[in-house]
Amino acid sequence: MLVSRHKQENLAHARELVSRAAQNGAQLVSLPECFNCPYGTQYFGEYAETVPGETSTTIAALAAEHRITIIGGSIPERSGDRLFNTSLVFGPDGKLCGKFRKMHLFDIDIPGKITFKESETLSPGEELTDFTTPFCKVGIAICYDLRFPELTRLYADRGCHLLVCPGAFNMTTGPVHWELLQRARAVDNQMFVATVSPARDETASYVAWGHSTVSSPWGDVVAKAGHGEEIVYADIDLNRVEEVRRQIPVRIQRRCELYHSLAAAKPQ
Amino acid sequence: MLVSRHKQENLAHARELVSRAAQNGAQLVSLPECFNCPYGTQYFGEYAETVPGETSTTIAALAAEHRITIIGGSIPERSGDRLFNTSLVFGPDGKLCGKFRKMHLFDIDIPGKITFKESETLSPGEELTDFTTPFCKVGIAICYDLRFPELTRLYADRGCHLLVCPGAFNMTTGPVHWELLQRARAVDNQMFVATVSPARDETASYVAWGHSTVSSPWGDVVAKAGHGEEIVYADIDLNRVEEVRRQIPVRIQRRCELYHSLAAAKPQ
Repeated sequence: MLVSRHKQENLAHARELVSRAAQNGAQLVSLPECFNCPYGTQYFGEYAETVPGETSTTIAALAAEHRITIIGGSIPERSGDRLFNTSLVFGPDGKLCGKFRKMHLFDIDIPGKITFKESETLSPGEELTDFTTPFCKVGIAICYDLRFPELTRLYADRGCHLLVCPGAFNMTTGPVHWELLQRARAVDNQMFVATVSPARDETASYVAWGHSTVSSPWGDVVAKAGHGEEIVYADIDLNRVEEVRRQIPVRIQRRCELYHSLAAAKPQ
Repeated sequence: MLVSRHKQENLAHARELVSRAAQNGAQLVSLPECFNCPYGTQYFGEYAETVPGETSTTIAALAAEHRITIIGGSIPERSGDRLFNTSLVFGPDGKLCGKFRKMHLFDIDIPGKITFKESETLSPGEELTDFTTPFCKVGIAICYDLRFPELTRLYADRGCHLLVCPGAFNMTTGPVHWELLQRARAVDNQMFVATVSPARDETASYVAWGHSTVSSPWGDVVAKAGHGEEIVYADIDLNRVEEVRRQIPVRIQRRCELYHSLAAAKPQ
């Protein structure tokens, strides 16, 4: 989804795209990170909303209307005097079934390329969010969270077979890391991983890499967008999860007791 | 290195290749997994040696002769009544400075593609092996160990800036997982990762994927072999480790206490 500076336009456009996806048979739909607001610390305060609020109400109604599950990408959320980068999930009954606040804030500094400090305005979340669908248990991460393998591992250990990660990598990290990280999380945890990016807008202050992608438990790419706006459809064959786990049984071959004792014996 | 069924030939060939690399300026040289023996459970018992033994003595002398560090790929090691898949490391003084026994045995079953059960004949190692060189601290893993992100993480936490992984992926897992896994370990831990495979031999019972590779802390490929025999040279710029860690400071952004409490709160 291409995100503009006009919140009302963004909400109307999200409604249009989700409706089209639902009409084409999608049962689980995700919007991208920061879909109602341009991505940038200078925007978060101005666009932030409480939950419930205008955006959450819009998405809830959309989920109920089409009887689908919607992962509402993310929005800047105001809670008391703090702001969060928050993903809201609504079930086919239109009820909130998950709320995830980005746990790892995007603070990086690559001189001459990109410097960004989300923690200037946002506070980090403290909780995992997984929810049950008729298909499988699903976990949520947002963008930079994908760099921390521990998070996906925790979701896998909780029984999630799909991780959905709304995220906006950029023109520096995107080309090398976007596909690599999601395929690695998929293979290491033998689960599906879907990433959902805003479309690239060369005129924005933060230029997103785009390329929303679905990776399989085997680590191959099931579906992938270009950098422009498009709906990515993927048939997620959940049988692949059990199949790959049976074929390469790393989950039961892990030597956790050894990792713990080795870590304990020689701390950093 | 192309590995034959003749141990003496393999040792002579290893001597020749390592000498050539050293003459061309290599200071740290690694041989592939199972370089003195064809890879296969039917061979391990027959080719196994104690340490010290013929192979270790050969490699030790070679290290001393050229004043280089040699990671002796791996060999089937006999210790009492057990066999291990073992990597021996010798310093420029010809002394053993590291011994790593493959910690995760390769037991997989992909019907119609590949079934292998290393644990039929081998026992697993129980210890990490890192060693100090004039350049940086180096950790060792062998092949299937690469599938377990915990191991590389432990080495990184111990201060290793390079992981060397002799390994022989195959024609099923190699195309999708070989490069992906090593680049992921490199990016997640912001360290160099070098993998060293036997050359592909279509006549062998186990056909190796080949493609020895060096990946940087940024996750790009610094050097990569084809599937045939060749020496892969790479200049490893260790400044890149600190640079990337400063730019994307995931090491200090990890929320370990949270991971532990979340894991403890909801065990599998």
